[in-house]
Order: sequence, then C-alpha cells, then structure tokens
Amino acid sequence: MSVSGAPPEGPLAIVCGAGNMPYRVADAVIGRGRRVVLLALVGWADPLQVERYRHHWARLGQLGRLSRLARREGCRDVVFIGALTRPAITQLRFDLAALMVLPRLIKAFAGGDDHLLTRICRIVEDRGFRLLGAHEVAPEILVPPGQLGRHAPSERDRADIAVGQALLAATGPFDIGQAVVVAGNRVIALEAAEGTDRMLERIAQLRREGVLKLRDKSGVLVKAPKPSQDRRLDLPSVGVRTIEAAAAASLAGIAVEAHGAVTADLNEMVRQADAAGLFVVGVPAGEPIRGDTRGDMRGDMRG
Amino acid sequence: MSVSGAPPEGPLAIVCGAGNMPYRVADAVIGRGRRVVLLALVGWADPLQVERYRHHWARLGQLGRLSRLARREGCRDVVFIGALTRPAITQLRFDLAALMVLPRLIKAFAGGDDHLLTRICRIVEDRGFRLLGAHEVAPEILVPPGQLGRHAPSERDRADIAVGQALLAATGPFDIGQAVVVAGNRVIALEAAEGTDRMLERIAQLRREGVLKLRDKSGVLVKAPKPSQDRRLDLPSVGVRTIEAAAAASLAGIAVEAHGAVTADLNEMVRQADAAGLFVVGVPAGEPIRGDTRGDMRGDMRG
Repeated sequence: MSVSGAPPEGPLAIVCGAGNMPYRVADAVIGRGRRVVLLALVGWADPLQVERYRHHWARLGQLGRLSRLARREGCRDVVFIGALTRPAITQLRFDLAALMVLPRLIKAFAGGDDHLLTRICRIVEDRGFRLLGAHEVAPEILVPPGQLGRHAPSERDRADIAVGQALLAATGPFDIGQAVVVAGNRVIALEAAEGTDRMLERIAQLRREGVLKLRDKSGVLVKAPKPSQDRRLDLPSVGVRTIEAAAAASLAGIAVEAHGAVTADLNEMVRQADAAGLFVVGVPAGEPIRGDTRGDMRGDMRG
Repeated sequence: MSVSGAPPEGPLAIVCGAGNMPYRVADAVIGRGRRVVLLALVGWADPLQVERYRHHWARLGQLGRLSRLARREGCRDVVFIGALTRPAITQLRFDLAALMVLPRLIKAFAGGDDHLLTRICRIVEDRGFRLLGAHEVAPEILVPPGQLGRHAPSERDRADIAVGQALLAATGPFDIGQAVVVAGNRVIALEAAEGTDRMLERIAQLRREGVLKLRDKSGVLVKAPKPSQDRRLDLPSVGVRTIEAAAAASLAGIAVEAHGAVTADLNEMVRQADAAGLFVVGVPAGEPIRGDTRGDMRGDMRG
C-alpha cells in the first residue's frame, strides 16, 4: 500500500508494561505526528509516567476490556511494550473475553516463551487488531551498529564476541534467553530462565568466590534475539541496569545484535558504560566481528 | 596387539583427585588382578582412603616428581581420576620438569577445558606414559543404559529429555559444561562455568522466589559428555550429590548419557533417587528417547 493511498491512521494503542520503554515509544510516535492511547497494565506500568498521556488502566488478562478501550479510542494498531515478568496464573484477572480464549491462553503458558508470545499475537489479531512491534513505530529504540561509546573492544574481546555469536546461533532454535558471557574464548555463562541480570550476578559471585579465575575487566556479554522470535513482542532489551550488572561482573564490555535489541535510553546507557570503562558495540546479525574488520565496525562510530 | 602377545603389564598409576571415585577405580582394577599405585594429590585426595593402597603424595604441578614416582614403580599406564576444580596458578607447585613445559601449561590454562585437558594429555604422553581413561580400566563406573531405579520417566519427561539431548548436541562444539534442565519443553537452565550442582541450586532458588512457576516434581536434568571431549580425562560424573541437588530443585528425575558419564556408587545413587521419588535413566548417545520407545528403554531395566 503506498503512503499516499494509505487509509488515515487512528491513534496507536500502546499496552504498557514496566520500565521506561513505553514512554520512550509514546514520545517517538507523538514526535512523528501520530496520537497515542496508553493502555496501562495495573501493577506494571508507572502511574506517574502514564499520567502524562491519554490513557486507561486495565489488568493483565482483561482482554475484553483492553479490546473495548482500544476500539472506542479508534485504534486499529496495537503495540505491546515494557517488561512483563512471566505472570503466574493467579496474578491474572480474566474477564469474559479472556475466558472465551482461556484454553488457548493455557496452551500458550504451557510452552516456552516463543510459544506464549506467538499465541498471544494470534489472539490479538483474531480480535481485529494489527499488532506492531515497538521498534516498527519507534525505530530509535533499536541498538544501532558500531562502537557506541568511548571504549573499543580489544582483539581478545572481538574473539570472545565471535564465540558468543556462534553459540547463540547454535542455541537459537531452542527458545531460550539469548545471552551468553564469553571470556578468553571460554563460555562462562549461558542464560535461560534466570534472565540476563541474574546471569551477570552469577558471574560476579563466581569471581568473588574464586571459582572463576579471570583477570579484571575481561569477558563480554553477547546478546541477540532468538532467530525464531516474533520481534513484534519480544526483542531483548539492554539499558543502564545491564551496564551496572556487567560492570559488577567485571566484564570488558557488551555486544548486542544491531537492530536486534531495544534500549529505552541509549545515550544514558553509553554514558554509564563510558564512565565504567566498558565498551558497547552493536554487531550486525550473522556477521561475527573479527580482528580484521575493525575498520568496518568503526565506520558507524558514535559519540 | 593380541592379548597373548601383550607385554606384561606393570602396575597402574592412579593420579587421585577428590571424591570417592579414585578408590572405586583402584578396587575395580585390583579385582581384575592388576596392581595399582596411587599418586595422591595433596589437597584433593582423601588421606584416610589413600592409606589403604600403595601410594605416594605429590602436589599438582610436580610433574617431574609424578613422573619419577610412576617410573620407579614400573608403571607405564596412568589414569587421572577424581574431581579437580580448575586450579589457580598460585595453587600449583611447579617443579623443574613442570617449569620446562610451563609455556605449554600456560597455553593450556588460557583455553577452555577441552583445550586444557588435551594439552595435559600430550604432556603426559610426551613423557613416555600411556594415558588411559578410568572407565577403560574400570568400566563398572560407567552409567549403564535403561531405567536404573524404581521410578520411570513420564511421557512429558521423555519429551523434556529429547529437548535436552538436542540442545546438548547443539552446544557440544563449544566446550562448555554439558548439562541442561528442561521442564515442560522449556529449557530453564544451561550449565557453563558454575557446574551442575550450582545450576540445580539456581533452579531451586528461582522456584522458591516464584520466578519459575512449575509444578513440583517436574523438569529433568540431562547430562552428556561433550562430543569433542577427551574421555580419558573428563567424563561427566553423577552421584548422590546430584540426586540431592535434583531433589532440592524439585525435578522429576535425571537422564544421563549411557556410557557417557561415571559414578562412584551407582547403587547408592539409585537408592537415594528411589527414596526421593526421582527417576534415573541412562540414555543412549544420539538416540533421543521418545514416547514410543518405552519398551526399548525398559529392556535394560535394573533393580
């Protein structure tokens, strides 16, 4: 459909979880001249921030209420954004519409994350909405390629990044958290249900206890989306907390798949990394950086 | 070389690390009519158990002393067995012979575990010894195939085992700890530098905190050797502690690659698993068990 022939867009419905990301996305969309309506999830969205926008509150599981609110506001496009820890069934409030699809929801919860999200996508689309990725309406939240701060990865770090990328490519089909820490060519941690922050805490602890004997400021966190992942719902995110956790684990830096992860405030994250002496690089998907491609990587250097 | 034409075998030198495994191996070798000499590593081997055998003490890193002792005792064959946490360089005592190969040792320590062990093998063989795997001289320490205790894996557990085996096959080339926990088709933990026991502790903790919401007695620990691993030095081991940790993590059971892992006391391990309500199965390498192969698995049932 050409831009000129496109039907007039209604406002964008943004279903808001925790963190700053929903407001960053809302601001970016408003900056492009489109109205937004926040559908804020009780217990996750930040009331102080939500206040600043046209909004309604709903509970996770109130599918009927969310649908009615979005329709009443004239929204056809919906974005889900913000952290949602995998909820317990007891934390959900199901309304009638949700009860109608409960068997599908239960099936969704029984599988891995991908499974869950894919089914939720279908349920939303079956109700007549168009589900968009936050990065589609606000591409500025994507991590760009290249060296993003003051510090650059060493040759050794680049080798560790290549190992991490290869490992994530191998584990991609398995629907697990896509983050790994490599130090001196050795894989020292792989993320699954615990999440990136806890994985980094584990490294800090193993180092303190002397189980891991590595020199300070060594090792790289490598993060990428799962190949099978529906990017509209669940791109990995990095931020100031990632930098803090990586610094506490005494890593040399972090490497994130360029355009494959989102961040609520890239500039603040890079400032923190600069101050902590960590590098941050966006690495093109499927193109492991190597010692001999330094020139390419710096081509897109920032700050 | 035919058995009849084989040269007379001298005693077997057993370099002993921590745990009960060295004495289990020594007893098995003695039971086959061959003499043994224990070369016990100070700080790792258990003095009370070592006492029961012909033995000498040495420190890890005293390569010259270990070689002299083994030669003086007429040993050509050497087995390394027992737990050795990756030592810090400062914990090692290098004698002159070790200093001669120090550059190779340092290189060995810089890589992953496989790398380390492969290089140590070469150093030992360059000194004129024949390095054997403990399971070659004492095959009774290998985990056999089939259901090993009173409890059997459910269909769901079998599906989890198949996922775990497939994932370990995918991560095999990366020289990382080969253990994974799968629950309801979802990979919830992957082992790297932390080791199996700590990985299982993590699951217990994530369950306690409600981060992992699984029904009790669900999930399977799947353990296999790395495809690239030199089995003479580093087959994975399971034992009573594995069962305790799996029970604390509220798993349904453990699946170990048959003939691909060792255990110091299979009967005691199986007794503990029976008491805790956990299944223990030995799964043939490269043949993921499925729901429709139950008959095959039970073909080799024990106790």
